[in-house]
Amino acid sequence: MANDKKLVAAITDMEQDFPQWYTDVVKKADLVDYSSVKGCMIIRPYGYAIWELMQKELDSRFKKTGHENVYMPMFIPESLLQKEKDHVEGFAPEVAWVTHGGDNELQERLCVRPTSETLFCDHYKNIIHSYRDLPKLYNQWCSVVRWEKTTRPFLRTTEFLWQEGHTAHATAEESEEETIKMLNVYADFCAQTLAIPVIKGEKTAKERFAGAKSTYTIESLMHDGKALQSGTSHNFGDGFAHAFEIQYTDQNNELKYVHQTSWGVSTRLMGAIIMVHGDNSGLVLPPAIAPIQVIIVPIAMHKDGVKEKAFEINEKLSKSVRVKSDLTDKSPGWKFSEYEMKGVPVRLEIGPKDIEKNQAVLVRRDTGEKITVSLENIEKEILALLDEIQKNLYEKAKQNRDSKTYTAKNMEEFEKILNETPGFIKAMWCGDRACEDAIKEKTGATSRCIPFEQEKLDDVCVCCGKKAKHMLYWGRAY
Amino acid sequence: MANDKKLVAAITDMEQDFPQWYTDVVKKADLVDYSSVKGCMIIRPYGYAIWELMQKELDSRFKKTGHENVYMPMFIPESLLQKEKDHVEGFAPEVAWVTHGGDNELQERLCVRPTSETLFCDHYKNIIHSYRDLPKLYNQWCSVVRWEKTTRPFLRTTEFLWQEGHTAHATAEESEEETIKMLNVYADFCAQTLAIPVIKGEKTAKERFAGAKSTYTIESLMHDGKALQSGTSHNFGDGFAHAFEIQYTDQNNELKYVHQTSWGVSTRLMGAIIMVHGDNSGLVLPPAIAPIQVIIVPIAMHKDGVKEKAFEINEKLSKSVRVKSDLTDKSPGWKFSEYEMKGVPVRLEIGPKDIEKNQAVLVRRDTGEKITVSLENIEKEILALLDEIQKNLYEKAKQNRDSKTYTAKNMEEFEKILNETPGFIKAMWCGDRACEDAIKEKTGATSRCIPFEQEKLDDVCVCCGKKAKHMLYWGRAY
Repeated sequence: MANDKKLVAAITDMEQDFPQWYTDVVKKADLVDYSSVKGCMIIRPYGYAIWELMQKELDSRFKKTGHENVYMPMFIPESLLQKEKDHVEGFAPEVAWVTHGGDNELQERLCVRPTSETLFCDHYKNIIHSYRDLPKLYNQWCSVVRWEKTTRPFLRTTEFLWQEGHTAHATAEESEEETIKMLNVYADFCAQTLAIPVIKGEKTAKERFAGAKSTYTIESLMHDGKALQSGTSHNFGDGFAHAFEIQYTDQNNELKYVHQTSWGVSTRLMGAIIMVHGDNSGLVLPPAIAPIQVIIVPIAMHKDGVKEKAFEINEKLSKSVRVKSDLTDKSPGWKFSEYEMKGVPVRLEIGPKDIEKNQAVLVRRDTGEKITVSLENIEKEILALLDEIQKNLYEKAKQNRDSKTYTAKNMEEFEKILNETPGFIKAMWCGDRACEDAIKEKTGATSRCIPFEQEKLDDVCVCCGKKAKHMLYWGRAY
Repeated sequence: MANDKKLVAAITDMEQDFPQWYTDVVKKADLVDYSSVKGCMIIRPYGYAIWELMQKELDSRFKKTGHENVYMPMFIPESLLQKEKDHVEGFAPEVAWVTHGGDNELQERLCVRPTSETLFCDHYKNIIHSYRDLPKLYNQWCSVVRWEKTTRPFLRTTEFLWQEGHTAHATAEESEEETIKMLNVYADFCAQTLAIPVIKGEKTAKERFAGAKSTYTIESLMHDGKALQSGTSHNFGDGFAHAFEIQYTDQNNELKYVHQTSWGVSTRLMGAIIMVHGDNSGLVLPPAIAPIQVIIVPIAMHKDGVKEKAFEINEKLSKSVRVKSDLTDKSPGWKFSEYEMKGVPVRLEIGPKDIEKNQAVLVRRDTGEKITVSLENIEKEILALLDEIQKNLYEKAKQNRDSKTYTAKNMEEFEKILNETPGFIKAMWCGDRACEDAIKEKTGATSRCIPFEQEKLDDVCVCCGKKAKHMLYWGRAY
């Protein structure tokens, strides 16, 4: 095995250089290629297939909760972007501006959407008149652009793919309920489909989305102890409704402003999958989103009946599993490494000796364990194994996250943890922006969220020593 | 019925004003809304649901023919766009230019992709080295931008949604085979899924795609006798490969240029569906792409057991059919008109008398026919009926197309047809650009294609009287 490994170009050890390990994996697992467009990535077929599986699952969860898909223009006129004050201040510095159409200078420049609140508001103003028109539960799948100085595939790119939900409701209660509901949809999707445990909580005022009344977030922890904001859900209250004059007539014939939300996850989640589950042999994919769940590698392929048997098993499995056979003339060792790099959950080896015994050898990507199974029960065994791998990946990720979650009672402890054993830090906070700023300046860590599950670690703020209001999660973050 | 109609705002008669009828349908059927972004449309949930069903079917056909999805950046640096001379000349006049990122002017301006040949070439150059890397069969779903002066929803908009296939092959034979194969995929999809018959053929040199060696097209005929180019497939030969230096080492260790294709269909097909099948009551949708295939309208909904029965039938049908029940307090007449406008293939009426007799009334959108069926066999009956409607729509469209296809032997006949009975005109052509230009100038008709199924109508060109080379299809077009 050690020898075979060398057949596929090795990747950097993650303990030695985590950022380089990450870059190696995204390239060598054929997820991404760089393009000649600064800060933009090419998502290759294998990477895109993972994204498609994620989309399919998320989209079905959105539709089950009553949402409908729409498509809005990719351009926003400058005057429209400026309608909500906080929102334009947040986004204007990082948008791409279209100034010319063909040879002609435009009368008003257009920005390429960094997010589409303003477009949805403009549309809602046209189509919402009565309480009968509410709620509007819309979502869109598209790409957005934010001009970034330093970029990394999936984690921070000038253009990225995402979905953005935008909803309008009759009351403040309903918009708050929707905001939390969609945060829970994201958290369940991460846990069940991506096998990634997340912390659910509210962002501090400082970290709130531009224009939002409250922003909720799911935060996950990467292998190197850094946090990743993995999805956000915003309650706008009636702020945008006032700016865009979105009003409806209620049951008593009174004119009211709507209450709105927006929520999104992006291809950033691909980065989370890589950095939560990956190891020094490459990518490790949860079966639920693996484009290939089982790779069949025939051994001694030139021998009578081996190819035929591989084909037969492939046919049998393909009814219930995403299976592929590699019948190329590369060596089995090369193939082992290649599909380990690609994170395929199960390898199935079949050779002349196995055929004699009517068996196959299964190798788990998550543990390396080899299991000999009878060909009689192969389909059932594999389905059970994929299930077990999915669960095991979640458990491993949770153990890792928990083992890297610390508590700090004073700034000395806080800094020691960050420098020696990076991870999440739970600490008490007085609620003042000044302390939040001071901690960030001193340590480089940012407040991740005020978790829904509060604990009372202490009576006083970790920074100023005054009475504590909340327990916060902190971490250095992507 | 005539009385109920008035409950829903009427649309313009298609015989009186076809363009206004079209605009009325796209608005009143809730397909599209206008946006404050010039030339860009909002695709509303009902319109987008149709597009999603089209995508699903096309995507499965692409995957069955071995294609993989990828995602390329939406921006193209000006220098990259300029690499292939004909291509840049074709597209530069109609692209949107990004000149600023945030507050900074870009060193090189970027165009928003009008099509992605240059990006795919740039990527292929990086990833194709050996004959083992071929063929590359890629596709992408995205939006593109072409700066248009006059726009109409779905038919011509500044931004539109589409798919673009881009493939690279070892030989000229293989790229030609791919080009034709994908044209056939489009034609079959139009016939079987959209119930739209198309003419398959090759574009003349004048109408060829910028940079292509040959362009193939599918052409359909709208209700008003105008043609619509409904999909194209291009063979680039090795032209782009030379411009971008895309070479591979063949089995004999010789360096060769690849041969490439591209092919695309867009939301323009939504326009075809409207204008091929629609009538004076609104949209008429082929069941294969109808978001709602059966709408259940309860009659005398306040009577005991009516709502419950509607719910029961809905539950039963929902296993095999896209079904919805309208239980709102609007009148049955209003609902009849509303779902006729939306083109729902089958309306199911259920009232107290029907329940007594254990039956329901089905009303076909395509013919208006009422059919009483027993609730015993309702699922089977509806599946058969949807099938019949799908076939009938195709037959009706084909009969209409055929009845509006004429032959012209001289320019007098040619002009008479165009002015009195617009439709496709078949006419012989010498093959000279001069005649093609002259006919267009004189009549406003453009050459649609040199159809694969040639007929010999005459020995001489309809325009100059010299020896004819091909039979051409002509028409005024969208």
